[in-house]
Amino acid sequence: ARPRVGYFHSGKKPGRVLAEKLHQVKVGEVKSVPVVVPEKCTVYDAVVTMFIEDVGTLFVVREGGFLEGIVSRKDLLKTTLGGQDIHKLPLGVIMTRMPNIIYAEPDESVWEAARKLINHEVDALPVVKANAQEDGAMVFEVIGRFSKTNITRLFVELGEGDY
Amino acid sequence: ARPRVGYFHSGKKPGRVLAEKLHQVKVGEVKSVPVVVPEKCTVYDAVVTMFIEDVGTLFVVREGGFLEGIVSRKDLLKTTLGGQDIHKLPLGVIMTRMPNIIYAEPDESVWEAARKLINHEVDALPVVKANAQEDGAMVFEVIGRFSKTNITRLFVELGEGDY
Repeated sequence: ARPRVGYFHSGKKPGRVLAEKLHQVKVGEVKSVPVVVPEKCTVYDAVVTMFIEDVGTLFVVREGGFLEGIVSRKDLLKTTLGGQDIHKLPLGVIMTRMPNIIYAEPDESVWEAARKLINHEVDALPVVKANAQEDGAMVFEVIGRFSKTNITRLFVELGEGDY
Repeated sequence: ARPRVGYFHSGKKPGRVLAEKLHQVKVGEVKSVPVVVPEKCTVYDAVVTMFIEDVGTLFVVREGGFLEGIVSRKDLLKTTLGGQDIHKLPLGVIMTRMPNIIYAEPDESVWEAARKLINHEVDALPVVKANAQEDGAMVFEVIGRFSKTNITRLFVELGEGDY
């Protein structure tokens, strides 16, 4: 019999091997580029940005790229129905604000981040670097976007056995 | 040494074990309930249905539950910006029609269906049973919904090693 080079006995159930793999991949490895807008941006401009950039979630940042808010396609669709003038309405009025934003950090596992998406019923998370300012307040620099699309893409790659 | 009951030597690379698992799970095992509307429904009613049912995609069916069209949250958001009267505009005007709809079948692997979501850049697929009518024309009965949320949920379950 030929030696089975590169094959080994892991002593683990297949389910366990799979579970461990999903915990090993980090958010930082699969994240996408974040699409950010300023708080004074109008709802109309936000919708246009969403279509131009083809994303389902926008992150609202202040100077320095620090996270202030988040808006989803769902939030914007609800607002366009509301009868307000979306050419004048600032995004800050409808966005979800810190500290109510669910986020991920780059060293977190994709499994943990996927669990946040399911438990909090959101489509995407901002990927942030958290830092304490001189006055002790925390700021969250937006460095990426992690969504159900990233998971789906990873899922496809894992199924090709290439990951 | 204690015998390792239930553990075995698969003779496969861990990556291969994982890949095979993703191919074994079928769309029919993880699909959700489809949310369907008739073609004469207005765009406004479709948006309301989307919010009430909390889904991102609606399937448009004719009598018998046969697939006619599909509309996404993105399609509806674009339409609400268009300046038309969404209380009068029928969904049939803006929906994507057969044969341009990407769908999945219940016996298909979730991996194959995930690949369709990525390759065609859509968020959800109708799960259908295809049947030939007496005249030879194909009809597609909508029996489920398969989305990036189903994949994310499966991903979380697989990572718990319970699947």
